[in-house]
Amino acid sequence: MAVLSEALTQILIPASALIGIGFALLQWLLVSKVKVSADYGKKDGYKDKLIEDEEEGAENADAVIKCAEIQNAISVGATSFLFTQYKYLGIFMVAFAVVIFLFLGSVKGFSTQSEPCTYNPGNLCKPALANAMFSTIAFLLGALTSVLSGFLGMKIATYANARTTLEARKGVGKAFITAFRSGAVMGFLLAANGLLVLYVTINLFKLYYGDDWEGLYESITGYGLGGSSMALFGRVGGGIYTKAADVGADLVGKVEKNIPEDDPRNPAVIADNVGDNVGDIAGMGSDLFGSYAESSCAALFVASISSFGITHDYSAMSYPLTISAMGIVICLITTLFATDLAEIRHVSEIEPSLKRQLLISTILMTAGIAVVSFLALPSEFTLFNFGTEKAVKNWHLFFCVSIGLWAGLAIGYITEYYTSNAYSPVQDVADSCRTGAATNVIFGLALGYKSVIIPIFAIAIAIYISFSLAAMYGVAVAALGMLSTIATGLAIDAYGPISDNAGGIAEMAGMSHKIRERTDALDAAGNTTAAIGKGFAIGSAALVSLALFGAFVSRAGIKTVDVLTPKVFIGLIVGAMLPYWFSAMTMKSVGSAALKMVEEVRRQFNTIPGLMEGRAKPDYANCVKISTDASLREMIPPGALVMLTPLIAGTLFGVETLAGVLAGSLVSGVQVAISASNTGGAWDNAKKYIEAGASEHAKSLGPKGSDSHKAAVIGDTIGDPLKDTSGPSLNILIKLMAVESLVFAPFFAAHGGLLFKLL
Amino acid sequence: MAVLSEALTQILIPASALIGIGFALLQWLLVSKVKVSADYGKKDGYKDKLIEDEEEGAENADAVIKCAEIQNAISVGATSFLFTQYKYLGIFMVAFAVVIFLFLGSVKGFSTQSEPCTYNPGNLCKPALANAMFSTIAFLLGALTSVLSGFLGMKIATYANARTTLEARKGVGKAFITAFRSGAVMGFLLAANGLLVLYVTINLFKLYYGDDWEGLYESITGYGLGGSSMALFGRVGGGIYTKAADVGADLVGKVEKNIPEDDPRNPAVIADNVGDNVGDIAGMGSDLFGSYAESSCAALFVASISSFGITHDYSAMSYPLTISAMGIVICLITTLFATDLAEIRHVSEIEPSLKRQLLISTILMTAGIAVVSFLALPSEFTLFNFGTEKAVKNWHLFFCVSIGLWAGLAIGYITEYYTSNAYSPVQDVADSCRTGAATNVIFGLALGYKSVIIPIFAIAIAIYISFSLAAMYGVAVAALGMLSTIATGLAIDAYGPISDNAGGIAEMAGMSHKIRERTDALDAAGNTTAAIGKGFAIGSAALVSLALFGAFVSRAGIKTVDVLTPKVFIGLIVGAMLPYWFSAMTMKSVGSAALKMVEEVRRQFNTIPGLMEGRAKPDYANCVKISTDASLREMIPPGALVMLTPLIAGTLFGVETLAGVLAGSLVSGVQVAISASNTGGAWDNAKKYIEAGASEHAKSLGPKGSDSHKAAVIGDTIGDPLKDTSGPSLNILIKLMAVESLVFAPFFAAHGGLLFKLL
Repeated sequence: MAVLSEALTQILIPASALIGIGFALLQWLLVSKVKVSADYGKKDGYKDKLIEDEEEGAENADAVIKCAEIQNAISVGATSFLFTQYKYLGIFMVAFAVVIFLFLGSVKGFSTQSEPCTYNPGNLCKPALANAMFSTIAFLLGALTSVLSGFLGMKIATYANARTTLEARKGVGKAFITAFRSGAVMGFLLAANGLLVLYVTINLFKLYYGDDWEGLYESITGYGLGGSSMALFGRVGGGIYTKAADVGADLVGKVEKNIPEDDPRNPAVIADNVGDNVGDIAGMGSDLFGSYAESSCAALFVASISSFGITHDYSAMSYPLTISAMGIVICLITTLFATDLAEIRHVSEIEPSLKRQLLISTILMTAGIAVVSFLALPSEFTLFNFGTEKAVKNWHLFFCVSIGLWAGLAIGYITEYYTSNAYSPVQDVADSCRTGAATNVIFGLALGYKSVIIPIFAIAIAIYISFSLAAMYGVAVAALGMLSTIATGLAIDAYGPISDNAGGIAEMAGMSHKIRERTDALDAAGNTTAAIGKGFAIGSAALVSLALFGAFVSRAGIKTVDVLTPKVFIGLIVGAMLPYWFSAMTMKSVGSAALKMVEEVRRQFNTIPGLMEGRAKPDYANCVKISTDASLREMIPPGALVMLTPLIAGTLFGVETLAGVLAGSLVSGVQVAISASNTGGAWDNAKKYIEAGASEHAKSLGPKGSDSHKAAVIGDTIGDPLKDTSGPSLNILIKLMAVESLVFAPFFAAHGGLLFKLL
Repeated sequence: MAVLSEALTQILIPASALIGIGFALLQWLLVSKVKVSADYGKKDGYKDKLIEDEEEGAENADAVIKCAEIQNAISVGATSFLFTQYKYLGIFMVAFAVVIFLFLGSVKGFSTQSEPCTYNPGNLCKPALANAMFSTIAFLLGALTSVLSGFLGMKIATYANARTTLEARKGVGKAFITAFRSGAVMGFLLAANGLLVLYVTINLFKLYYGDDWEGLYESITGYGLGGSSMALFGRVGGGIYTKAADVGADLVGKVEKNIPEDDPRNPAVIADNVGDNVGDIAGMGSDLFGSYAESSCAALFVASISSFGITHDYSAMSYPLTISAMGIVICLITTLFATDLAEIRHVSEIEPSLKRQLLISTILMTAGIAVVSFLALPSEFTLFNFGTEKAVKNWHLFFCVSIGLWAGLAIGYITEYYTSNAYSPVQDVADSCRTGAATNVIFGLALGYKSVIIPIFAIAIAIYISFSLAAMYGVAVAALGMLSTIATGLAIDAYGPISDNAGGIAEMAGMSHKIRERTDALDAAGNTTAAIGKGFAIGSAALVSLALFGAFVSRAGIKTVDVLTPKVFIGLIVGAMLPYWFSAMTMKSVGSAALKMVEEVRRQFNTIPGLMEGRAKPDYANCVKISTDASLREMIPPGALVMLTPLIAGTLFGVETLAGVLAGSLVSGVQVAISASNTGGAWDNAKKYIEAGASEHAKSLGPKGSDSHKAAVIGDTIGDPLKDTSGPSLNILIKLMAVESLVFAPFFAAHGGLLFKLL
């Protein structure tokens, strides 16, 4: 048995979660010390500091009042969008909960009799009806936690944006700390909250299930499904919202009217800034929470039918949770390196500081994994491996988790290489703008395709090692390893949109060029970290999906998924097609919504007298409404595609075809997602490279408004839906179909394949 | 036993091939009646007709002389490029032949002893060394036939282009017949030649192999490998050549200098027209020949280890060849519908006439398949199915071949729907040009992604039915079914570039607006048929690859390819990445070569006095050289990627991982290929839609030179490498890796997986 006792495990996990929440609240408190209010100028204390800081003396209370107003407009817009979205999602949640209950309840004809267990037929397990009910409850809890994660993230981000702007008056270091702390609030709240809810749910479910861990952890998988299905709509809806506004604002503002980004005269500017918060923050928060919940559920499910579950070894069983708990503590220490142990004095230190966060957390976490693996696990045990048992040692699991963690770092660094304008790939793309938009697009697409190579090898190596050492459990904990530093990952990821917003507010409030320059520097670093974050999200999604896929196959009672059977092969090729179908929908949605936005923005410029001269205010609300309506309407078809495919494939074609679909969509989707994200990121930074004009080469392509720059803007606009709508939503497509299949596996195994049965 | 006797089969196959060749020569003779020469005007006869046709009276002998000159320049350029390319390919062929011989010879340590057969261990089979030698010979024969196919196609096309231009003076019907007959020459020569060489080779090899059909048909697979490896370099090299010239010519000529397409002042114009012949004609000819050779080889190999081979039933064994022989006869009848039974009187009749060809050939061929299936096959027999035997009836095979044939038609029609500007998808893309190039690109990409859906379902259904009815043999003959009307398919496919060239020659020779209008109409129909041809090529490639994959797995002695083993899964995900890697290379190659071409064209416009005013001639040869050098240099890395991957994967990681790679690249590559081809085709036709201005909607977007048109030109330029370089080359990637794995299967089975053996 493990060194760590059950009692200690029961204390450590919730304690770490509570520490994480406490730390998040502390950071929030520190951020809240920056005051943003209309009566700000009248108060003392802060005013004094500004006087000391003479170079900012020019700023006056007016700017602060403007900041407060803009912040309020963004916050109100984002909150109102999310509430409208949640209304729709509420209906979906209830409807889908009913579906889960009915499908799973029907497995044994709604019988209330106890049944022989599936994997341990000597024992009696709880009735399928109970599993149906608890799966439904877990689904609802996962969905609510996901919604909460997204909502809290948005609240913090809209709370922090103007504060970052104001702090930028005192220097880049202060602004950085504010943005980073706010990101950390989101990261820690989300990680700790996810762990705590999962822990509490397991313990509550245990009151009913008792020793039936098989049923208990089967029901718990509903938590992952709930988390990811909300994330899907969050990502897709948020992605369409933000890019419709962004593309629309740019096409008229920058291209036609030649006014700068975030100019307050642009009617779509508020919608654009709201979009950052509902798409990049709320959507991404839900997405990563989903990955976390799913990889935990996959690992727990496989463990429950392995020796941990059969011998009821609680500490070993809770290994995935203990890893996450350790991750929170490690990330807490890592955060101190950015906020307290070092100070940013120059803009050039921002990006290295953020990258250092990743490296520090990875190194520390490796030690943390070792500690947990040797304390929480017995030195030798067996794991379920598609019907056979595999003997595993505790240090095998240490390698599995670590390889996931380091593969994540590798993917992050490669992503940075392909999307940061400090390196040659993006500079080549910028250079191709000389001959116009067409060559820019050709080079950008080629870059995106090329950037897939190394991440795929990293993922393949991680899968091979973890799979060989500990079968599907190994893959699940490798995914958990990649996500173990999620608090830090989210902190630097959320930092990006917050800085972006801060820059927008500075521009809209008419603050000085110097301040805008500082927020721009924060934003540029944020662009790169956003790309890194997407790399992580995709990499972990690939591992998570494979683990869920393995769990599904185990639960469905399939022994092999043989490509050389027609049922599996057609699943494979159709599955590989789904990411294209899905992307076609989301891209077209952004395109159509953007066209509507363009018409509205043009209409306002044409019909509101004095708008261009800054004498009249645009009608921001109308643009917000267009984005809101478009995203709510357009998120339904892609959402339905993802949610219905496993149900249709499983019910009509059976588990083998469904297994093929999952494998196909996984191996194809991950490529589309990585290339879309990186192509978009590269175009964005190629444009920024030309705009910044920091080298001789960059200057030869610029300045703003040159033909090369115009070509770069076209690339950037094309990249918007690729990198912020289609690409990141594809992670969820592959994860969600897998977790949904896992939850419905008992039904498919019992009643699936109707079409083939009929033929 | 079958109704058809062995003797009759032995007569029918070569007879059909000879009829096909005869028919091709007859068509050539008819085309050659159109005289193109400097002394043309002085001869009588033809002159008379032109005088009768008064509206063309304005044309004079000068135009004919110019046509002859331009034709000559194009022909010389294309011939010289192909010969240079063949020099490189000759080196490759010899080197790779040595590799094949050494790898396969080493399977049994170069022993000259006879061995027990693999599938029929009671009998003695020829030594592995003999198989190595005959595989090498078959490889060389396949390579030579492929080269010959491409070369003949190019010769005919460059012979027909100016003749089509001259016939356009007499009306659209005459021009259409000339272009179509020339396409038919290529189609029939290629189909008949491929069949004849294969037939003769089998019979010659049989002199040595005697009753050892297992060894005989294993060696014959080298024929497919030879065909496809030449096709790879033909497609990639030709694709880079043509698109570097095209993109370069357009970026300076159309965008910067505002001169029309094919204007003789553009220095890259000859290179552009040469490119059509080496890329679209020679490359495509080799490609489809490769598909044909491979699907025949896959079917023959599987048959040889099934009851046909074991009982030495020659007629049944030759079923794939008999199907192809029947296809030649059917296509011959079909061609008469276009050339003799109906006459084109108006441009609007062109596209329907070409589409009718597809439909007629499909309907007639269905009857042909029925005849062959009932005559050449025994009513019941067994087929090899991964170690087990599957009982099959002759009408099962009728269904297998027919489903492939009809799936091809469905893919062709869907491709037309998504790429022809007669339907809403392309019109929507054209409409999105209102808001600029960015929305055009977003909509175009979305269209390409969406166009994947139905073809994939068609392929999946064809695979499911043929696989279920007759295992891998069923899939192989389904592929053959899709290719059975290859003569007609190639005829309408080759018609496109010939018309394109004809238009170019008309423009360069300064012929009247009326003539240019007619060639434009021919060309527009050709664009759609080119897209249909690509759809066919991809669909058949998917089926062929799967059949080859199945044959490889059989030969390598694998019983299952289980996704749930780490070896297979890493193969699957890395395989799915390869199409991206490959596309990254080819896109970047086109981009870089185009940049060089742009610089050269700009240089000539800047330094040659009077060029823009038409007083001086540009230096066409320099542009031809740039395209030649770029394509020869840049075809090597993607070629190496495709040729080396199976060798490395098989040798280091073993047959399971290689099986995963093949499955992954197949299911991923087919999506990338279809979406790339259709996106490019749609952009091209969206541009043509705006230019033609044939409807109120189209007029509101035009005319040429409007902002919408400029945006459409950017889309068209981006689409060039997608639809003519990356997309079509991907077919070959998936086929070639599969056939190469099949040829090397004995080696991998004996010595593969070194890395895993070492660990």
